[in-house]
Amino acid sequence: MRARERVANEDVSGEEELLERIARRWAGARPPRGSLGIGDDAAQLPWPAASPVLISTDLFVEGIHFDLRYTPALFIGRKALAAAASDIGAMGGAPLACLLSFAIPARTPGRLTDAILASFHEEAREIGIPLLGGDLSSSKTKLMLDVVVVGRLAGKRPIRRSGARPGDRIYVTGPLGGAATGLVRLRNGARPWRSALKHRQTPSLRSAGRLEHSLETIAVMAHLRPRPPLAAGAAFGRSSVPTAMMDLSDGLAIDLRRLCRASGVGAEIDEQRVPLHPAALHFLGPVGALRAALGGGEDYELLLCGPGPSEAVLRRIARSVGSDLIAIGTVVSREHGMVLCGEEGARRSLPHLGFDHFRPHHRQR
Amino acid sequence: MRARERVANEDVSGEEELLERIARRWAGARPPRGSLGIGDDAAQLPWPAASPVLISTDLFVEGIHFDLRYTPALFIGRKALAAAASDIGAMGGAPLACLLSFAIPARTPGRLTDAILASFHEEAREIGIPLLGGDLSSSKTKLMLDVVVVGRLAGKRPIRRSGARPGDRIYVTGPLGGAATGLVRLRNGARPWRSALKHRQTPSLRSAGRLEHSLETIAVMAHLRPRPPLAAGAAFGRSSVPTAMMDLSDGLAIDLRRLCRASGVGAEIDEQRVPLHPAALHFLGPVGALRAALGGGEDYELLLCGPGPSEAVLRRIARSVGSDLIAIGTVVSREHGMVLCGEEGARRSLPHLGFDHFRPHHRQR
Repeated sequence: MRARERVANEDVSGEEELLERIARRWAGARPPRGSLGIGDDAAQLPWPAASPVLISTDLFVEGIHFDLRYTPALFIGRKALAAAASDIGAMGGAPLACLLSFAIPARTPGRLTDAILASFHEEAREIGIPLLGGDLSSSKTKLMLDVVVVGRLAGKRPIRRSGARPGDRIYVTGPLGGAATGLVRLRNGARPWRSALKHRQTPSLRSAGRLEHSLETIAVMAHLRPRPPLAAGAAFGRSSVPTAMMDLSDGLAIDLRRLCRASGVGAEIDEQRVPLHPAALHFLGPVGALRAALGGGEDYELLLCGPGPSEAVLRRIARSVGSDLIAIGTVVSREHGMVLCGEEGARRSLPHLGFDHFRPHHRQR
Repeated sequence: MRARERVANEDVSGEEELLERIARRWAGARPPRGSLGIGDDAAQLPWPAASPVLISTDLFVEGIHFDLRYTPALFIGRKALAAAASDIGAMGGAPLACLLSFAIPARTPGRLTDAILASFHEEAREIGIPLLGGDLSSSKTKLMLDVVVVGRLAGKRPIRRSGARPGDRIYVTGPLGGAATGLVRLRNGARPWRSALKHRQTPSLRSAGRLEHSLETIAVMAHLRPRPPLAAGAAFGRSSVPTAMMDLSDGLAIDLRRLCRASGVGAEIDEQRVPLHPAALHFLGPVGALRAALGGGEDYELLLCGPGPSEAVLRRIARSVGSDLIAIGTVVSREHGMVLCGEEGARRSLPHLGFDHFRPHHRQR
């Protein structure tokens, strides 16, 4: 990591100070032997074996991916890193190290910058990866993070989006729609982390009021603090059993469509089997919850496919890393298209849900 | 590369279209066998030998690193990639592949986006590296690029900033202050690329008017289209002769200070030997040119140190890749500090020049 641009009329400038604060924060973390981190033009990561490098880069832009009106800084760095690490897991890999590019508007309070960097550090510590470098810049108007995660294949080959074959089963690793529900609650003014952070306890379910509050906390946390199943991704990768895999960052409807397009197949999803997040059901009702599960995005669960006979193996793998595996449908031939099967055999086209960064009239997050 | 966020109510959305346009542009480039590029959650780069991975990430933010009022889109992608690749060369490495994160404001004309992507592609083709992935996002207000370059050591070990020892000579690989001069001319309204692009010819020096125009073109191009000496960086790295190396992205004064701080040494620079860019001399005069060379930044030449007896070897290496090697001073012990030696033995402290992203009262680029 280096502070680009010219530096001020003192020996230690604001930039160098910020860099040194970052380096100090990371001083305890031990990067792999042979790594070079903060301080040189580029980072170095030792790579002893003949194994491919996995790399992912993920933007996290103020006003698009987070909104300071309702996103506490404490979660911004965490989420940016979790989302980028999720991409490595979704390839069947294990994250090894990260880099952070951070553009900071001139009037940003130091405590906001610090909170973002602290939460980034906490997430990295939980994942168990060092920060090896990055770039710092000012910004004219908005905060912007770009996170790079470098990882290694857990198995012999990556699990791509393009390997699904007709007859494969389609699975997800957890309930969907929680993050979207949390975003709705946040926009409606919910700030449940205040008490959650204060009491440091798992919400109990003793009363209706508490249930409401608990579900709200869980949903809001699902939005603010996604925990991608990295161990499951690596375990599936090690097994080489899934034929296709990706992470559910943009919603099941669109992500499944992408997987099917890459694989040249269609899909039949059993509406009843799509695991709806309990908070989505509670706050949005069954129709809203299905909509959130299909189009909400940011759940960061895995979407994967595998041959029917391997289902028991996949279940065992998921269980071994404390993850769920929920069968939600079947891969069919491309001509069948994308079908959502409802109650009593009702079939309809998988709805198109979501928004597009580059079409102005669609719903923005 | 994947289009994050939810996608529109059509099978091919704006995002997917943009992704496909990018993929089409790169269809001719052949990434190394075993690479996975655009289309999956993460990119894969084959890494057959036991050799460390070099990674650099570089922000390029509208209003900070470029200004659409005077930066033609045609140069934006090029410069963002050149700056990031320069970091790999400065470690003694060779770039192998790149990733691009690109945040685009909603009202950005398609031709602007296309021109930026086209110029990024041209630079990558010249460097000889494929685009393996990235991220696309909308942005609330400003364009923002973050470029990741992955590379390999050319030799056995990286050339870091921290290896300079008292007695070493200090070198740069080319004239300094050209980019800063170009920026001044641009801000004063110079648009010399119009005719340069039109006539596709090297400016001739036949008349004074032409000299003026030629020097302006050269200076403006130095700012808009830096060409870091990547071959020299790799050749120096292969030789393992330099004791310390970095790229001159932020100006000699501050970059040398960083190198010296990392090495725990001081430096004596011979003012007369600092190679001033001819356009800087012409437009800024000797005092202004020295100021531009010391504090201007963005020249993307290499700054390196090496033991005195190895000077002939370093010169041979530089010559073999068509690069200059200009000795500008000597590494001294830390207590001597940072000294600029002028005419007739005048000595003064190396001036602090430049600006700081994070101190509001300093000069902004």
